[in-house]
Amino acid sequence: MKHQYLDNMPLEEAREKYLELLKNNGFSYKTEIIPAALSFGRVSARAHYAKICSPHYNASSMDGIAVNSEDTYGATEREPAVLSRDSFTPVDTGDPLPEGKDAVIMIEDVIFTDDGCAKIYSAARPFMNVRQIGEDICMGDMLIPSFSEITPTLAGALLAGGNINAEVIKKPVFGIIPTGDEIVSPKEEPEKGEILEFNSTVFSGMLSSFGAEGKIYPIIPDKKELIKATLEKAVRECDAVLILAGSSAGRDDYTCDIIKSLGSVLVHGIAVKPGKPAVLGAVGSIPVIGLPGYPVSAVVIMNEIVRYVADGWYNRGKSSVSKVKAKLGRKVVSSLKYEEFIRVTLGKVADTIAAVPISGGAGVITSFTKADGILRVPQNLEGINAGEEVEIELLKDFDKIENSLIVTGSHDPIIDEISDIMKRMGEGLSLTSTHLGSMGAITALKSSTAHLGAVHLLDENTGEYNKSYINKYFPEGGVKLVKGVKRVQGLMVQKGNPLGIKDFSDIVKGTYINRQGGSGTRVLCEWLVKKYGIDKDAVKGYYNEEFTHTAVAAGIKNGNADVGLGIYSAAKMYDLDFIPVCNEEYDFIVSEKAAENENVKLFFEILVSDEFRNRLEKLGGYGV
Amino acid sequence: MKHQYLDNMPLEEAREKYLELLKNNGFSYKTEIIPAALSFGRVSARAHYAKICSPHYNASSMDGIAVNSEDTYGATEREPAVLSRDSFTPVDTGDPLPEGKDAVIMIEDVIFTDDGCAKIYSAARPFMNVRQIGEDICMGDMLIPSFSEITPTLAGALLAGGNINAEVIKKPVFGIIPTGDEIVSPKEEPEKGEILEFNSTVFSGMLSSFGAEGKIYPIIPDKKELIKATLEKAVRECDAVLILAGSSAGRDDYTCDIIKSLGSVLVHGIAVKPGKPAVLGAVGSIPVIGLPGYPVSAVVIMNEIVRYVADGWYNRGKSSVSKVKAKLGRKVVSSLKYEEFIRVTLGKVADTIAAVPISGGAGVITSFTKADGILRVPQNLEGINAGEEVEIELLKDFDKIENSLIVTGSHDPIIDEISDIMKRMGEGLSLTSTHLGSMGAITALKSSTAHLGAVHLLDENTGEYNKSYINKYFPEGGVKLVKGVKRVQGLMVQKGNPLGIKDFSDIVKGTYINRQGGSGTRVLCEWLVKKYGIDKDAVKGYYNEEFTHTAVAAGIKNGNADVGLGIYSAAKMYDLDFIPVCNEEYDFIVSEKAAENENVKLFFEILVSDEFRNRLEKLGGYGV
Repeated sequence: MKHQYLDNMPLEEAREKYLELLKNNGFSYKTEIIPAALSFGRVSARAHYAKICSPHYNASSMDGIAVNSEDTYGATEREPAVLSRDSFTPVDTGDPLPEGKDAVIMIEDVIFTDDGCAKIYSAARPFMNVRQIGEDICMGDMLIPSFSEITPTLAGALLAGGNINAEVIKKPVFGIIPTGDEIVSPKEEPEKGEILEFNSTVFSGMLSSFGAEGKIYPIIPDKKELIKATLEKAVRECDAVLILAGSSAGRDDYTCDIIKSLGSVLVHGIAVKPGKPAVLGAVGSIPVIGLPGYPVSAVVIMNEIVRYVADGWYNRGKSSVSKVKAKLGRKVVSSLKYEEFIRVTLGKVADTIAAVPISGGAGVITSFTKADGILRVPQNLEGINAGEEVEIELLKDFDKIENSLIVTGSHDPIIDEISDIMKRMGEGLSLTSTHLGSMGAITALKSSTAHLGAVHLLDENTGEYNKSYINKYFPEGGVKLVKGVKRVQGLMVQKGNPLGIKDFSDIVKGTYINRQGGSGTRVLCEWLVKKYGIDKDAVKGYYNEEFTHTAVAAGIKNGNADVGLGIYSAAKMYDLDFIPVCNEEYDFIVSEKAAENENVKLFFEILVSDEFRNRLEKLGGYGV
Repeated sequence: MKHQYLDNMPLEEAREKYLELLKNNGFSYKTEIIPAALSFGRVSARAHYAKICSPHYNASSMDGIAVNSEDTYGATEREPAVLSRDSFTPVDTGDPLPEGKDAVIMIEDVIFTDDGCAKIYSAARPFMNVRQIGEDICMGDMLIPSFSEITPTLAGALLAGGNINAEVIKKPVFGIIPTGDEIVSPKEEPEKGEILEFNSTVFSGMLSSFGAEGKIYPIIPDKKELIKATLEKAVRECDAVLILAGSSAGRDDYTCDIIKSLGSVLVHGIAVKPGKPAVLGAVGSIPVIGLPGYPVSAVVIMNEIVRYVADGWYNRGKSSVSKVKAKLGRKVVSSLKYEEFIRVTLGKVADTIAAVPISGGAGVITSFTKADGILRVPQNLEGINAGEEVEIELLKDFDKIENSLIVTGSHDPIIDEISDIMKRMGEGLSLTSTHLGSMGAITALKSSTAHLGAVHLLDENTGEYNKSYINKYFPEGGVKLVKGVKRVQGLMVQKGNPLGIKDFSDIVKGTYINRQGGSGTRVLCEWLVKKYGIDKDAVKGYYNEEFTHTAVAAGIKNGNADVGLGIYSAAKMYDLDFIPVCNEEYDFIVSEKAAENENVKLFFEILVSDEFRNRLEKLGGYGV
C-alpha cells in the first residue's frame, strides 16, 4: 500500500492556472450547424444576420379593402367617397398589397353598395393598415451576436429572417469513467462490499446544467492498464474527461500517474474541504480531471472546477451565482488548511433569512439533496459563530426558499409525511426539516431560525411532557405549544428478542446504541438510566450516537448493536421486535408571530386531517 | 366576410375560470416510470422512500487495518499495542468491516513489524474510521416528497437508496396546429403572400421552459373540416392542444366554432394587449387554446395562460416571476380597455435601473427578442410617465442585465458589430442598444437611462457636428464627447438611378421615404430641405417615417419609395445606387461618471481596435 502526499493549492489559484493551461493547450469550442427550429437553448457560435426582411412584402394588417390612398382624399362622414368596383381589392390580413395600392381600409369601415362599389367615410393615409416590408426585421440586421443564448423568440426571429439553420456551439461531451473493483451498477439488493455507482448519474445531471453532455463509460476495475486504455479512448471520443477515482487512495495514484503518462498534471490536491484529492490534468487539448470518490467531495469539484471548464468552452465568462445574506443558525468550525463548503438549509423566519448548517461528511450525498445553499468558509477563518451574518450561494430559487416552512427539532417520519401531503396540495408550498433534537428546537425558536419546533421533552419531576420546558426556556412567553401526536417509545431489539430483554434495565445485556445529546429520546434515556440506577460507563456502546430513529433501527438490524430506544414505526419498518417503554407527547412549539403565517396554519390543518390520520395508521404506533 | 365581436374578459378572471373549468373537466397529470439515472430535471409523482440503507454495510472509510477496538485499549505513544497477525485485517476504503471487527486504524498510524504484527500508538474507538450502515440514507427514509423537482444529487440519492426507477410526472404534450392558406414552412426565399410559420418554433421552445413538450402538426389550410379533423386527432394524441389561428379574422371564427362543435369555449377575447383574440376552450379533459396569429400577441397568451395550464398539470402552484423595480425611461400610453404588456430593455446606469419601452406592434417578434423584461400596465391606467418607478417582470437573469452596457440614440449597424466583438471577447459582457435617434440619446443621457448616447447632429449655423448640441443641452457639463467614426450620408435610389436623381433637390421627382423625428438623419434632411428651398408638403411620402437606415433601404428596394437619405453601408447591403451628400461625424456622448465604467472603457477600446476597423471596411462608407 503506497501513500502519496498531495498538494494543497488554494482553489482560486488552481482554477485560474488550470483554465490558463487549458487555453494554452487549445481547449476551445467547436461549432455545429443545426435547424434554427431546434436551436432554442443553444448558444450562437457567430453573429447571425437577417437574409430577408420580415415581412418580406407589404402585407395587409387587417381584413378589408386595399386602395390607392389618393383615391380616398377628402372622404368624410358627411361626404363619403365611393370607390368603383375596379379601384379596390378585398384583402385578408396577411395578404400582399396589390400593385398600385398603398393602404387598407378596415372591413368594418366600408359599406358595399348594391352595384359593388365601396363607400368609405374617411380618407386613407399611405400605408395605413399595412405592415410595410421590414417592419419587424430588415435584411442585413444583426439578429443575434456571437456567444448568446438562443431564446424561443430568437429562434423564431432567425426563421423569420430567413436563417433556416443556425451555427451554434457544440455541447461539449464530457466522458465519465467510473473506476473501482468494488463499484457496481445500481441494483436493488447489493452485496456487502459492493458500492453502488451513482456518481455518474449525479455528474451527468450537473453537466447538463452546465450546458454539457455526459458520456458514461462502463465501470473499469482497478487495473492500471485498463484505466489507461479507457482514458485513451475517451480522449479520442470526448471534449473533456472525468475519471471517478473510486474511494481507494491507491487508485488516486493511478489516476494521477495515468494522466501524467498520457499528458500532464497541473495539480493533485486542492485546498478545499470536501474535495481535496482532485487531479487537474490534460491530455493534449482535452482536460482530464480526476474526481474524488466521495460524492460530496466530487460535487464540490464539479461546481468549483468542472463548471468553469464548461464556461471556458463556451467562452462565456464566469458563471454567476445568486447569493443571499443570512443569519447563521449554528456555529461552524473550520480548518485553516482548507476553504470549506458547508451545506445549509435556508428559511425565511420573521423577515430574517436563517442558514442552518447540515451535518454529514463527504460521503453523505443527502447533505446536498437537502441543501438550499452553500456557505463558503475562507481558508484563513477558523469558524463562524451562530448569529453572524453570512453570505450564502443559492442552490435553489429564492422564492422557493421564501415559501418554505422550516420545521426543526426532534426526528420523526411524520414530518416527512406532512411534507408530502403539503406538496400534494399543489399550492407550491414546501417544508424543510432539520433534525437537531428537541433541545435544538428550543434554541432555533429562541433565535428565530425556524417556524416550528418539534419536541418531546419529559420533565423528570412532573412526568409531564414539553410544558415545563416552555415555561423554563421562554419565561417571557411569545410561544405556543400545539399538541401533535402521541407515540410509543420503546426498546428495539433483534427479531425474536434473542437476549430476552424485558425492560430498560436489560440494556446492559448487550451492546446499546444511543441517540445524540439534545434529542428528546436521549433525555428519556438519561431519565431511564437514573430511574433504573444504571452505570452508563458499564453499558457497551452507550456513547455510539445516531441522529434518527431509523438510523438506530438500521444499526440494530445490521448487528452493530443489540438494543436501542426508538419509536414503534422505526422498529416496524426494520422488522425488529419492540418492547414498549412509554407513551410520549410529540408536540410543536410555534412563536405567536409565526402562528399567523399561512404555511404554519396549513401545517396545523394537515395535522388534524383524515389523510394524515390514515398515514399515521400505516406507520403504526401513533395516537392523536 | 363575417365579423364577430369578441369578449373582453379581464386576464385574471379568464385565467382563474379557465383553470377551474379544466380541473372540473379532469385535466390532470399522468405519471410514468423511468430509470432514476435519467430522472434529473423531472418531477416526482409520489414520495420515494429508501429501499436500502446507504452505505448498506459497515464500510471502512480509510485504507488501513480493521481491528476489534477492545484489542487496542491502552495503546499510547509510549506503550504501543502490538496486534498479532490474525487479530487485524488490512482493508481499503469502501471495504466491508470483517466479522468481529468494529474499527479501522489508518495505514499511516500503523507500523508493521518484521514478523507481520501491527504496532499501534493509540487506542481505537468503536466505529472509528467506519462508515456505519445508514450513515447517509436509512431504509424507509423519505428521499423526496411528491411533486418535487429531481436534482442531480437527488437522482443519485434515489439510486443510493435502491430506487432503480423513479415514478415521475409525464411531460404534458401540447399539440401545435398551425393553420392558414398563406402559411408556409420557413424557407430562404419565400414568395409574396407567403407567411413563414415560425410561431410553432417559438411555442415549442416556450413549452419546453414550462416543462412541457410541443408536438407540431403539419400546416392546415383554412378549411373548417380539415382543421376540425386535425383537432380531433390531436385531442386523442395530446394532453393539450394549441391552434395557431393565423392572422385572418375569418379563421378565428373557425377556431372558436370548431372547439365549440367538439367541446366547449369558456371565453373568446381577453382584455390584454397584445393578445386579445385568444380562445380558451376544452374538448373533454383536454384544454384547447386558440392563439392569436400575431407572434407577440401569442407569446403574451403563452406566458399568461398556457404557462398556467402547464402549472396546473404539474400541480405546482403558480409560477413565480422575478421582478425588479426600475425607472421608466419613456412615457407609456395605454388603453383603459386592456391590460397592456410593454416590452422593455433594462440597464443599470449609475445605481439606477432604467426600463426603456421597445416600440413595435403585435407583429414585431424582435420586440420580444430584444426585451429584458415586461411592464404590465393595468387596465385602469391610461399610461405611466417617464421617470416614474415601475415594477418589471424579468425575462433574463438579473446579473446579465447588470453587466450590460446600454447604448442608445442614432441607429448604425456598427453598434451591433461592437456588440458582437464584445461577446467574442468572452468576458460575459453584453451590449443593449435601442434606436431612439440622436435627440433621444441626449434625453437618455440627461435622465441617466443609458451609459452611452450615439449622435450625429449637424449644427445648421456652424456646419459642425454634435459639439454645439452638447453645449446647449448640457450647459452644466458632466458629459464628454468621444469621437466615433466618420460616415457618408447620401441618397439611396433604385439600382441604375431610374429617376436620374443628382442631388437632394431632386427628391421631388419621386416618392420620398423619411426617417423619424429626432433622428440625426431627419435633422440633416430638414437642413437640406431648407437649403434647397423645398416645399415639404409637395414631397410625396415625406411623412412616411422609418426608424433605421436599413428600413429606408428596404422600402426603396421594394418600391415603396424611390429615394431616401441614409448611410452608404445600408445602400450597399441592399444593392442600391448611392449619391453621396455629406460626410458626418457619428460620435458618442458619455457622462463623466459612466466613463469610469469598465464596460464603457472596453467599448472605447474596441472602437480603436483592428478588429473593428476590419469590420468597418467590410460594411463600407466609414472612416476613422
